Amino acid sequence: MSTSDPLVVFTPSGKRGRFPVGTPILTAARQLGVDLDSVCGGRGICSKCQVTPSYGEFSKHGVTVHEDALSEWNAVEERYDQKRGLAKGRRLGCQATVQRDVVIDVPETSQVHRQVVRKDASDRVMVMDPATKLYYVEVAEPDMHEPSGDLERLAEALKAQWDIAPVTAPLSIMTRLQPVLRKGKWAVTVALHKGHTDDSYQILDIYPGFNEERLFGLAIDLGSTTIAAHLTDLRNGTVAASAGVMNPQIRFGEDLMSRVSYSMMNPGGDKEMTRAVREAINGLAQSLAEEAGIDAGQIMEAVFVCNPVMHHLLLGIDPVELGQAPFALATSRSVSAPARGLDLSALNSNARIFVLPCIAGHVGADAAAVALTEQPGQQDELTLVVDVGTNAEILLGDKARVLACSSPTGPAFEGAQISSGQRAAPGAIERIEIDPTTKEPRFRVIGVDLWSDDPDFEAAAAATGITGICGSGIIEAVAEMRMAGIVDASGLVGSAAQTGTDRCITEGRTHAYVIHDGRAEGGPLITVTQGDIRAIQLAKSALYAGARLLMDERGTDTVGRVVLAGAFGAHISPKHAMVLGMIPDAPLDKVTSAGNAAGTGARIALCSVAARAEIEKTVREITKVETAIEPKFQEHFVNANALPHATDPFPILRGIVPLPDVSYNTKGTEAEGGGRRRRRRG
Amino acid sequence: MSTSDPLVVFTPSGKRGRFPVGTPILTAARQLGVDLDSVCGGRGICSKCQVTPSYGEFSKHGVTVHEDALSEWNAVEERYDQKRGLAKGRRLGCQATVQRDVVIDVPETSQVHRQVVRKDASDRVMVMDPATKLYYVEVAEPDMHEPSGDLERLAEALKAQWDIAPVTAPLSIMTRLQPVLRKGKWAVTVALHKGHTDDSYQILDIYPGFNEERLFGLAIDLGSTTIAAHLTDLRNGTVAASAGVMNPQIRFGEDLMSRVSYSMMNPGGDKEMTRAVREAINGLAQSLAEEAGIDAGQIMEAVFVCNPVMHHLLLGIDPVELGQAPFALATSRSVSAPARGLDLSALNSNARIFVLPCIAGHVGADAAAVALTEQPGQQDELTLVVDVGTNAEILLGDKARVLACSSPTGPAFEGAQISSGQRAAPGAIERIEIDPTTKEPRFRVIGVDLWSDDPDFEAAAAATGITGICGSGIIEAVAEMRMAGIVDASGLVGSAAQTGTDRCITEGRTHAYVIHDGRAEGGPLITVTQGDIRAIQLAKSALYAGARLLMDERGTDTVGRVVLAGAFGAHISPKHAMVLGMIPDAPLDKVTSAGNAAGTGARIALCSVAARAEIEKTVREITKVETAIEPKFQEHFVNANALPHATDPFPILRGIVPLPDVSYNTKGTEAEGGGRRRRRRG
Repeated sequence: MSTSDPLVVFTPSGKRGRFPVGTPILTAARQLGVDLDSVCGGRGICSKCQVTPSYGEFSKHGVTVHEDALSEWNAVEERYDQKRGLAKGRRLGCQATVQRDVVIDVPETSQVHRQVVRKDASDRVMVMDPATKLYYVEVAEPDMHEPSGDLERLAEALKAQWDIAPVTAPLSIMTRLQPVLRKGKWAVTVALHKGHTDDSYQILDIYPGFNEERLFGLAIDLGSTTIAAHLTDLRNGTVAASAGVMNPQIRFGEDLMSRVSYSMMNPGGDKEMTRAVREAINGLAQSLAEEAGIDAGQIMEAVFVCNPVMHHLLLGIDPVELGQAPFALATSRSVSAPARGLDLSALNSNARIFVLPCIAGHVGADAAAVALTEQPGQQDELTLVVDVGTNAEILLGDKARVLACSSPTGPAFEGAQISSGQRAAPGAIERIEIDPTTKEPRFRVIGVDLWSDDPDFEAAAAATGITGICGSGIIEAVAEMRMAGIVDASGLVGSAAQTGTDRCITEGRTHAYVIHDGRAEGGPLITVTQGDIRAIQLAKSALYAGARLLMDERGTDTVGRVVLAGAFGAHISPKHAMVLGMIPDAPLDKVTSAGNAAGTGARIALCSVAARAEIEKTVREITKVETAIEPKFQEHFVNANALPHATDPFPILRGIVPLPDVSYNTKGTEAEGGGRRRRRRG
Repeated sequence: MSTSDPLVVFTPSGKRGRFPVGTPILTAARQLGVDLDSVCGGRGICSKCQVTPSYGEFSKHGVTVHEDALSEWNAVEERYDQKRGLAKGRRLGCQATVQRDVVIDVPETSQVHRQVVRKDASDRVMVMDPATKLYYVEVAEPDMHEPSGDLERLAEALKAQWDIAPVTAPLSIMTRLQPVLRKGKWAVTVALHKGHTDDSYQILDIYPGFNEERLFGLAIDLGSTTIAAHLTDLRNGTVAASAGVMNPQIRFGEDLMSRVSYSMMNPGGDKEMTRAVREAINGLAQSLAEEAGIDAGQIMEAVFVCNPVMHHLLLGIDPVELGQAPFALATSRSVSAPARGLDLSALNSNARIFVLPCIAGHVGADAAAVALTEQPGQQDELTLVVDVGTNAEILLGDKARVLACSSPTGPAFEGAQISSGQRAAPGAIERIEIDPTTKEPRFRVIGVDLWSDDPDFEAAAAATGITGICGSGIIEAVAEMRMAGIVDASGLVGSAAQTGTDRCITEGRTHAYVIHDGRAEGGPLITVTQGDIRAIQLAKSALYAGARLLMDERGTDTVGRVVLAGAFGAHISPKHAMVLGMIPDAPLDKVTSAGNAAGTGARIALCSVAARAEIEKTVREITKVETAIEPKFQEHFVNANALPHATDPFPILRGIVPLPDVSYNTKGTEAEGGGRRRRRRG
């Protein structure tokens, strides 16, 4: 380019350069490193390189763009416009050539690495950079004078036309290569998969001519209870279909430890569980493809996030080592492998799987996915991320350092071990308020929009009934009881006499608080019993102790921000969680929910090969803390038994809510609860 | 190392350096890059690092070695000596430490890259450098404080103890890793496979503790008629067992072109043939393993050499493109793939295959293997290598440049299309001499050590009989007939009157020469007919024309050396071949036989990963000449029809043998033979 050549300025990138008259815009963009898409390599076939020239005076760029800045529409553009329509003002970047100084806008839809804003809670911006992409190439025909293999000429074409090398092909591609090349008259589209650790490419599929078939990937959140999958368009990251199924391994054991036990007790039991989960994933892939109206063979990738036990069982590794100290993972790096090796036969026969790395024996790829989504290592404020489940994954970090641990909270937060507990389903109490003066409750149930003290509530709730309390409901119930003075700081429920309400009824030597008595209508009596409170105390103590351990390791008593992740985390009221002392004291507006951050992490890794390398690196840098062997965990656990806490002051919380200084311990000593240590996972 | 430290000199390498007192010899060897073997990494387990210290005055090295130059025998050496015996004068390099200046001889058996001299004809020195080797490692136990995967700790151990990285493991290894590590008490032996294109390693197998099981590989010469395999010890290159079977594809077509036709005519026919050959290879692997008394699971690799059609059918690629111009290969590079992908289930489940690269659509991996064995590109003299078969592969080259082509000689050299032709089996005439005066022949048959004019011959040949003429026999017969004046330069057989011998009998309008009449004893009448001579002329013309084409391309009329390769080539008499004009004129002592150079090439590639990279590079640099499209081929072919040649003078040959200037053309013109061009392969 010489100084007398026309100037081309690209927006929004601002990249600029001088190019000889007649240079196609696409060529100019490539030479400047401007992100302008093209699948067909500039042959006017794919229309991905559409640009919008801007005309007039651009003092910002020091350019005046005249009407004849670009070449006239050519035959290719005319034909494309007639066939499919080219939006007003648009040109095909591979056809329009530079004539005079010009400003070219690259619309977002023409950018390869366009940013996709997540629809869910945290609105994290996601950059499309999938591992598997389509490339159209024109391959040199064989020449007897210069004999070379068809595969080698394809590789040369990819190098020359896309600067892609080295490329390898599995045998199954080699066997199909020759007929496809000839059917496509030496033009083919290849689906290439780029490794996340190096710059090598593998051919996953090959189509004659220019292929417009879309490629898809599955982002799979493989939980111990449910398997959720998003069928995602690898071109733009949109979700074509989503579905969830029960994890069929449940028949081998409800929680993780019982599945590990099943494997220990039954020779070949791990293989049974592996087979079951793989079959379920195949079924899921098939039904998602059907729903989206695509061929399951278009699914080129599946990305998995899961806890370590699910991780091992998915890969066909006996999880027995995860059931006992020192909880050794078979591998702590990400796993990239052919889907065929996992018998995922529903997918394309050359499809790949990518499993995010596990952080430690108790801190899985799901926690790594949360880290990828929430990026604690990118935060200025010290951020605590808690993925609440039967096993809580906890991350604490900022730009300086990230720490992680897991803590065995048990199933109380999911409504299990709670006398009136139930799954979050219609009829379940999910919100509760207790009037601190009258001690009367009002509540809302899932499926009804009204509070229970609304005159129309009874009619509205007739369909669902009032059937029990779900996880978020029990958290609010206990917290409200504490704020209303029905429960004291040690977790003891007061008697009717002590609390001044008949809703406190006697159950053996303890008391329970009646939230709703439906017995007259044949419904249940819904109470929060002393046992329920103890169960919640155990669970929240484990959670808090885990967080506290990370804070110790980091040398801090406070955190700047708290993120509640996980499907359940999204429903927890920050205020009530803090009254319980589930999470450290913090300003309420600094406690946010991240929704299903693990599932989102799977989608990010599916849509971005760079994200795969990033999380691999991030996980290696995370400081892992093993709660099972930290002596201070026990102390933190005991101190966290109180509501909200025996020793930590929670000054911010105390400034917002009443925490009555009542005590219902008539024996003078605390006889029940606390002090017990469990290791429960699932 | 400081200048006051003791000096250690290694022989035969001559490498030297100063090391602190107490440095183990193995450590010193490694630091100096001396080739001293070790499987256990210096733990006194494997005994591979045995060395012989030399004592006394070494003026060559400027060293005097005293008796106390090395440390005393230690407990490990004592134990090893008691258990297995340490040869006199030997020490374990990992146990003996430097005390004073010392000269250490590394015996050949302790060298990793020891040279193995081939037992067969050319005595090529082969360097052991197999792709798959065993490594003993001690792996760090899992630590809850620093959680990492077992695989990652294994990789770290390989890096620290063997400087090997990066290492990957297939899923099947990942699933076995944890129990094997624990069974071996954190010591394991891994079978690692090194790629020939990069420095990455893959774990193929893993054994608890120190594994003494040997690893094996198969070197397979996959011919269209027979499949020959050598089960080779990957540690030292020795052949544990060899076997050959018929290629079962013969039932789909005798020669290559008929198999390509079978595939064209029968949908799925290529898959049938692929299945058949893979089954045969599995059977061969199993029977070889049985014969050698090993488990077929110890076979970690199979290296193949074959022509392009066999190459494609082995890999599951339809060979249809090889049956028509432009004879495009699916791939012209070597193929390295999991054996599982070829259904070679008899081998270790993670075994690898390596197929040498094809040179062109007609010049296969077998020709590449010949190039690897004979190394025309390393020769000072311009060397012509001819692999004689139904399709001849021809290489011409020296250090400056190598050229290759193939030529369709047809099956005449194998005794087919010859009236009394037969396979090289007992009873077949393999050597012939014709007295130029009496025109009487004498001959030898396979299985009998005497010439036919020996008084004891009749008795000796009673067991075998005299059944026909094999390929080398027919070459000698025609050449002797030419030298005795029974056949003229144009290939015409004279009549009894013209030649003065009744052995020339009339057959229709032509004549035939009687070599043996066994009819009285119920045996055959063995003659060389005019038709036989024409068939041989066609075959040898094709061969010579191919060689001549390469010489044209190279711009030369003479070659320095001729190598006859192939099982058949080994039996050809150089003098007779030259009388026929099969090969260019050259001093007889410059015409040698290379035996089964292709099969040897397979063994070289099996035993040396460097050889794989070498042949890949060599093949890319070879100039390929396609005989089918070279206009001059036809001219060379016609000129080569005469015995020895119509235009090339063969001065060296004429100085050695009589080539009577007879002519039996009574019509004045040459009406038969020559001029036809065939493309026949198989």
